[in-house]
This record gives sequence, structure tokens and C-alpha cells, in this order.
Amino acid sequence: MQIAVVGSANCSTEEYGVAETIGRLIAGNHATVCCGGLGGVMEAVCRGAKEAGGTTVGVILGTGDGNPYLDVVIRTGMGHARNVILVNSGDAVIAVGGGYGTLSEIAVALKTGKSVFGLCTWEIEGVVACSTPEEAVSLAVRAGHQYHLSHSRQGL
Amino acid sequence: MQIAVVGSANCSTEEYGVAETIGRLIAGNHATVCCGGLGGVMEAVCRGAKEAGGTTVGVILGTGDGNPYLDVVIRTGMGHARNVILVNSGDAVIAVGGGYGTLSEIAVALKTGKSVFGLCTWEIEGVVACSTPEEAVSLAVRAGHQYHLSHSRQGL
Amino acid sequence: MQIAVVGSANCSTEEYGVAETIGRLIAGNHATVCCGGLGGVMEAVCRGAKEAGGTTVGVILGTGDGNPYLDVVIRTGMGHARNVILVNSGDAVIAVGGGYGTLSEIAVALKTGKSVFGLCTWEIEGVVACSTPEEAVSLAVRAGHQYHLSHSRQGL
Amino acid sequence: MQIAVVGSANCSTEEYGVAETIGRLIAGNHATVCCGGLGGVMEAVCRGAKEAGGTTVGVILGTGDGNPYLDVVIRTGMGHARNVILVNSGDAVIAVGGGYGTLSEIAVALKTGKSVFGLCTWEIEGVVACSTPEEAVSLAVRAGHQYHLSHSRQGL
Repeated sequence: MQIAVVGSANCSTEEYGVAETIGRLIAGNHATVCCGGLGGVMEAVCRGAKEAGGTTVGVILGTGDGNPYLDVVIRTGMGHARNVILVNSGDAVIAVGGGYGTLSEIAVALKTGKSVFGLCTWEIEGVVACSTPEEAVSLAVRAGHQYHLSHSRQGL
Repeated sequence: MQIAVVGSANCSTEEYGVAETIGRLIAGNHATVCCGGLGGVMEAVCRGAKEAGGTTVGVILGTGDGNPYLDVVIRTGMGHARNVILVNSGDAVIAVGGGYGTLSEIAVALKTGKSVFGLCTWEIEGVVACSTPEEAVSLAVRAGHQYHLSHSRQGL
Repeated sequence: MQIAVVGSANCSTEEYGVAETIGRLIAGNHATVCCGGLGGVMEAVCRGAKEAGGTTVGVILGTGDGNPYLDVVIRTGMGHARNVILVNSGDAVIAVGGGYGTLSEIAVALKTGKSVFGLCTWEIEGVVACSTPEEAVSLAVRAGHQYHLSHSRQGL
Repeated sequence: MQIAVVGSANCSTEEYGVAETIGRLIAGNHATVCCGGLGGVMEAVCRGAKEAGGTTVGVILGTGDGNPYLDVVIRTGMGHARNVILVNSGDAVIAVGGGYGTLSEIAVALKTGKSVFGLCTWEIEGVVACSTPEEAVSLAVRAGHQYHLSHSRQGL
């Protein structure tokens, strides 16, 4: 299972800590972290996942190498269109913090029928507001399983 | 000048009318309408522009032909990633109505520093709420001119 | 009808002249020129089309304004992924000259079943080699009509 | 290190075997296999990599799950524009077999300065023709190291 974690490159210390815990919990659930691959929330979630022995994927804006905690880097070279690829790649989405990039990812996720769980983020109808990383990851893993079951295993 | 008009394929009769007037006014200002090229708000704004002798561009999700009021159709074949291309292509953005796709376009526009003028749409910090099509188009044309002046004429 | 003309930003004087004639002929056939929007062959074909009163569209790599002969600029911000959008947008494709970018466009066109007509370009199975701009445009317009007829008018 | 392996969904038995060996060798070199994630050459290279305990990434056209040998699936939903993302993501590229999609990937790789090593594929100036999987993987790993060293570790 792949959980997309979306959040800003510029984040507060609190958001960084929340994202790091989320990464640790996703890895603990044997799921892969997908993120935008850069700093801030994206770095924190990867760092947490690597601390717990998990796998991390960064879908980046450009063609560089992303943050140092990535196992796999997808160099889209497509700017913010990569937000759509990131959301498509998650079986469920967790949003932390509140930049406009994060908002675009929340919107695309809801548009395409993905479940979105939020912590300290935009209050948009359809986002399930969570109060702890544990709650967000537990709900996202459950939603990801359901998404996975309802979609065919192979195909385009 | 190119004005991106973003809005849902499913819209109310009122939104359709508002979008049609917006199209007519954009054409009257000798600007080109860029939109997502499908139905609803997208069709209405193209229809209005063509009534006033304007030029219309549809940046579509797939590889079809879009609505019947398009002069130019850009077949991205990229799904919702086309939202980013559409926003990039506008010198300013007008949002009408309130689907999640529209929200993603508003978010990308604000993320990339484009001015967004809204009618009957999401109340997001940074969106300039307008009360009439005239106000939205007049402000968008002015913002588009400024955007254009502050960016080099040629380049990648 | 939209004809995609693909070719390098760095071209010979001869290729520039050929592309300019192609642009003039496409406009004379009341078709729209779609190109990559930058210099070299892309500039030449737009220049020719504008001399003949035609319409020009540039699907560019970045988010600038492209060459000075564009009526419509599509700012993809997606680098070479724009090559795919350009090819998708043409009802037929004409290739002039021989860079690797042009080769990628020829390949995507053949992959997706578009007819490709070539002048001074890669000798790839499936490309129809032409000896004059007149031949290339005449065949492309015919192929474009057939493509158009065999695809539904509206849709994604 | 990430090696992009490009090749057709429809391949001969010989090409399938070649690709499977390539996958095994890439994994043996502790590099990650990146591919288009579907059948044929793409499936074979993933299968080989998994037999040797390696990591596999599929950058797919649509939003499904790709072939059964993928550790990570990147659902671009962008059709053939994913070819560009795949090539961008490899530190070097190996091409097996000869469809038009493969040709587009070879072309984009050469356009963007990536080394391309070929087996039973298009004879294009710039592609290094190899006679065995061992030769192709050994050269690709060396080129990948050099590419990696010459690019900054972090960034967009």
C-alpha cells in the first residue's frame, strides 16, 4: 500500500514533528510513504519512515535528487503538475499544514475520489479532520485497503 | 492577453449565465479565453466569447475535441494535470462556481502568483471575491496586463 | 483543423525557409499551426502562417511567452512532456529537420496512430518522406481531415 | 542509483529473456529498476529484479496498479508523457526491443543528455549498442555513477 502525504516545504516545528510521526506510523503499518520529495513536511515524513525502516518515494517538481531520506526519486520535471501524479499514486492521502500546493493536492484527491485525512490543514468539505497522527494513519491505512480492494490489480 | 476561466462541467443555470457574460466581456476586451474546454462553465464562457467575436482555447483532459465553441483545442491526455497547464497559460484567472477541480485550479494559481477573481466560488484567502462579471473581467484584464508587463516577452 | 509542425530550435537556413513555406501553406488551407512555440523551425512556421493571415499556437516547455509570432501560448511548464501534448493536439504531424526532440515527437505520433510527413528529417519506418513543402502540407491536410472524421466531435 | 529500462509491452520471447537478465543484473548491482510498469519488457525486467532481491518502480500511463512485480507504482494518468518522467528518473537508460514508445524514450534520453545502452533496439546515433545484458548493465551502472556525481544531491 502507498500513502501519499502532502504538505508544505515551509512548515512549523510542530508540523515537522507531526509529519515525522506520521512517517514512522506509516512504515510501522508496512505501507510506503509517497510525498513531494522536497523539504519541510515532505522531508519530515520521509525521515520518520526511514527511522522505522520503511520505504520512501519522492515525486519531485524538477529533475534533481530531492531530500536525503528518499529511497526512490521520481523526477517529473513538470512543476506543480506533479501534485496530480503524487495524489494518483497514493491509495489514500494525508494532508499536514496549509500551503496552496497542499490545497491543490487536497482538491485533486477529492475530485478523483481519494480519501483525505487532515492535520492542521485546510478545512475543506470532504477532508476528514484528525486530531492525532495515530488517528490519521489508522484511518488512511483502512481507506487505502478499501481503495485497493475496489480497484483491479493490473491495468493501465 | 489570455484570461483563464476555471469552473465546473456541472453548473447551475445562474453560473452558466455568469460564465457566458464573462466570455462576452473578455472578448470585448480583445483578450483570449482559455478554459478546460468541456461543458458547463467551460462551454458557457466559450459560447459568450464566440458571440462577441472572440478567440477561445480549450485545454482538455483527454484527446477528444472538447465543446463546440473552441477555436483551438489542446489535447493534453493528462487528466487533471491539465488544470496546471490551464492556469499557467492565463495571465490572470477568473473562477466561477465551486467544484473540487476548480478549487485545485484556484490553489495552483495562488501558489504560482497569479491573480484570481472569483464569482460564486470557494472563499479562499487570496481570491478576490467579485459581485458582477463586469467587475471580475475588468480586474482580471488589469491584472493580466500587469502580469504581462512584469514577465519577459520571450523565453522558455 | 490543427496541424502540428515539429522541428528543432536550432535549424539550418534551408530548414527555416522550408518551415516558413509550410506555415504559409497551412494558413492558406485554413488550418491552425501548432508548434513548440520557440525558435528555429518553430518560429519559422509561425512566421509563415502569420504572413498568410493564419492562426498560430505554441505549446511551450516553460512558462514564458514563446516566439513573437504566436496567437496563443500554452505554457505547460512540463519540459519535454509538452512534446506529447503538441502531437496529441495535431490532427496530423509535419516534421522538419532532425534533432532528438523532433525524433521523440515523431515517435509519439506514430505510437498514437497519427500520420507523420517528413522533410529533411529522421528516416523512421512510418514517416512519409516528402520532397516539397507543398507535398507535405497537402498530404497532412488530407490526413488531418480523415483523422477528424474518424474521431467523435466532442468528448474528453 | 536508478536505471531506467525502456521497452515494449509486446516483445519476443528472446527480448523477454534479455530483459529478465537485465533486471537480475541491475538488482545485483544494488540499483533500482525503473520502468513503464506494464507487460512485456517492463514485466520481464521487474521479474528479474525481484528474483535477485532488487527494488522495482513502475511509472505507468494510467491510474491502475501495473504488473505484479512492482514495489512502487507511480500512477501518472498522463499517457505517453510518462515516458519523459521515466527517462528523467533514470541515472542511465537501457533500451530493449523496438516499438515507437521505446523510440520516444530513447529520443528524450538523448535530448536530455542521458546515456542510452541498447539491445535489439533502434539504431539511432548516440545509442551505445551492446551485445549482452552484462555489457549493457555494466556500462549503464558506470554511466549512472558518473551522472550522479555530476549532479547536485539535493534540489528541485
